[in-house]
Amino acid sequence: MSGAGLAAIREAAARCAAFIHTTPVLTSRSLDAVAGARLYFKCENLQRTGSFKIRGATNAVFSLGEAQLRRGVATHSSGNHGAALAQAARWRGIPATVVMPEGAPCPKRRAVSAYGAEIVPCAPTLAARQQTLEALIARSGAVFIPPYDDARIIAGQATVALELLDQVPGLEIIVAPVGGGGLLSGVALCAHHLQSGLQVMGAEPALADDACRSLAAGARLPAAAPRSMADGLLTALGRLPFAIIRRHVRTIVTVSEAQIACAMALIWERLKLVVEPSGAVALAAVMTRPEAFAGRRVGVILSGGNVDLAALPGAHPPPE
Amino acid sequence: MSGAGLAAIREAAARCAAFIHTTPVLTSRSLDAVAGARLYFKCENLQRTGSFKIRGATNAVFSLGEAQLRRGVATHSSGNHGAALAQAARWRGIPATVVMPEGAPCPKRRAVSAYGAEIVPCAPTLAARQQTLEALIARSGAVFIPPYDDARIIAGQATVALELLDQVPGLEIIVAPVGGGGLLSGVALCAHHLQSGLQVMGAEPALADDACRSLAAGARLPAAAPRSMADGLLTALGRLPFAIIRRHVRTIVTVSEAQIACAMALIWERLKLVVEPSGAVALAAVMTRPEAFAGRRVGVILSGGNVDLAALPGAHPPPE
Repeated sequence: MSGAGLAAIREAAARCAAFIHTTPVLTSRSLDAVAGARLYFKCENLQRTGSFKIRGATNAVFSLGEAQLRRGVATHSSGNHGAALAQAARWRGIPATVVMPEGAPCPKRRAVSAYGAEIVPCAPTLAARQQTLEALIARSGAVFIPPYDDARIIAGQATVALELLDQVPGLEIIVAPVGGGGLLSGVALCAHHLQSGLQVMGAEPALADDACRSLAAGARLPAAAPRSMADGLLTALGRLPFAIIRRHVRTIVTVSEAQIACAMALIWERLKLVVEPSGAVALAAVMTRPEAFAGRRVGVILSGGNVDLAALPGAHPPPE
Repeated sequence: MSGAGLAAIREAAARCAAFIHTTPVLTSRSLDAVAGARLYFKCENLQRTGSFKIRGATNAVFSLGEAQLRRGVATHSSGNHGAALAQAARWRGIPATVVMPEGAPCPKRRAVSAYGAEIVPCAPTLAARQQTLEALIARSGAVFIPPYDDARIIAGQATVALELLDQVPGLEIIVAPVGGGGLLSGVALCAHHLQSGLQVMGAEPALADDACRSLAAGARLPAAAPRSMADGLLTALGRLPFAIIRRHVRTIVTVSEAQIACAMALIWERLKLVVEPSGAVALAAVMTRPEAFAGRRVGVILSGGNVDLAALPGAHPPPE
């Protein structure tokens, strides 16, 4: 695939190096015992802006020339890509506009504002997102930075795997959540180039399972009213990610809402890490299919940590 | 002080090295901006058993000879020291008994059991703890491993500072929470030996402020019905820790319950780390006295992460 081969991934890593964290990999004997496998948690919840999305957004924004960026950048996002684009645009010194569905989690909305982007609200459907964004771009002339269906975004997200493979020798499986598919396709591509025997598996909420159904059908199927608590995974699988996933991913495990909640609670309690529901879906997949992972060395991508903490017992809202 | 000079601290580090984690140090630009200082968070919430207490317990248990340990070890603890002693005893292959006050947080109780110790309940007063423990030891012949008033425990907790000073060159201040004083005295002792210009400050809930009052009075004063949400800091300041704190600590900052809750929420939201209320008290102190920290390089000890997550929105209890 042009533009997202290994060279493009390494270029993305170099382009982003000054901005993003090399996130740590944590392990837990107690979770290894629960899962019956050796788990290596790649902590993208500790990444800048609280998710891996900053990798792709930074790569895309810094790939463009000055002239192209004169009128700023724009996107649609339920949160993490929006916050990431806002931060990347601020680093580049250009304006950003983010179309956000009504009902997006409050901290994600707040983050997009805090990083200096303008928020344009829309109805909570994929069609409304696209229409609102198109109208906005026609008016402003901003450059659209897609959340996942883009070779620069995929190359950026692939740097998660570039780091992980360097940090943990001898990995046998990597499990990544799949929504639009930017992360899963990037990870699969990187693993294919660097360690072809390694198996990359997707993890998806059963209530938003278009990637799993698409892979089975061999054709991209529409998302049917996705409604999982994993709010980062409700987007439809992208065209370009699907082309890569089809070639390099054999299995997408679907998980129930209860399994997501249980995995999230385990990560909070045992790893002492705050993850959002989407960020717990990969561990949920490992626990749902123990036979597929028994005794193996498994990379589990904790994709993000932006969760609404307002309901925590005894927690007061933090100062702005 | 005999037994907890620098040599004793280095011996403790060597003795514990095979068992405990060198915990990571995290930073956050967003929290630096909130605090107006450069903060280095020492993540003892990511330590084995979920708190720094495993350092002292491991050092104490592995300092003793086989003959002494024949009848096992015992202690009283509201949770973290109990879990730590249970784990250390299991590593050494000896039985452990923990006297726990009724009302101790459920996950702490569960952890003590999970590490294989026997729990003996008592009324939630310091007097009841001691009486119950003395009766138990008279019966069983177990060796008492105190939670903090012990040179081996203090030398063990001091290894937090040994690591931190190695990880972050040029620190100017370290802030540690104080309950019984094992951690604060160990950190102060280590800093005194290794970097004498560095200031070590205590952080204490205003509702459990016996250490602050004792330091001001120059004499150990009794704890007056402590009742903070920081359940790990309700113990009375120990004799030996006080002797060290008096010599090497000039300031203990007291913080309100609202400040503890706010600091805890900030750590969860911005650092994506689960800390217990006691673990957030050091950051609360930094935010309470901004003038004392402005522009400085400050080590902030996140002492533990064992919090009751049962009330989390959407969280199911994790499998055992």
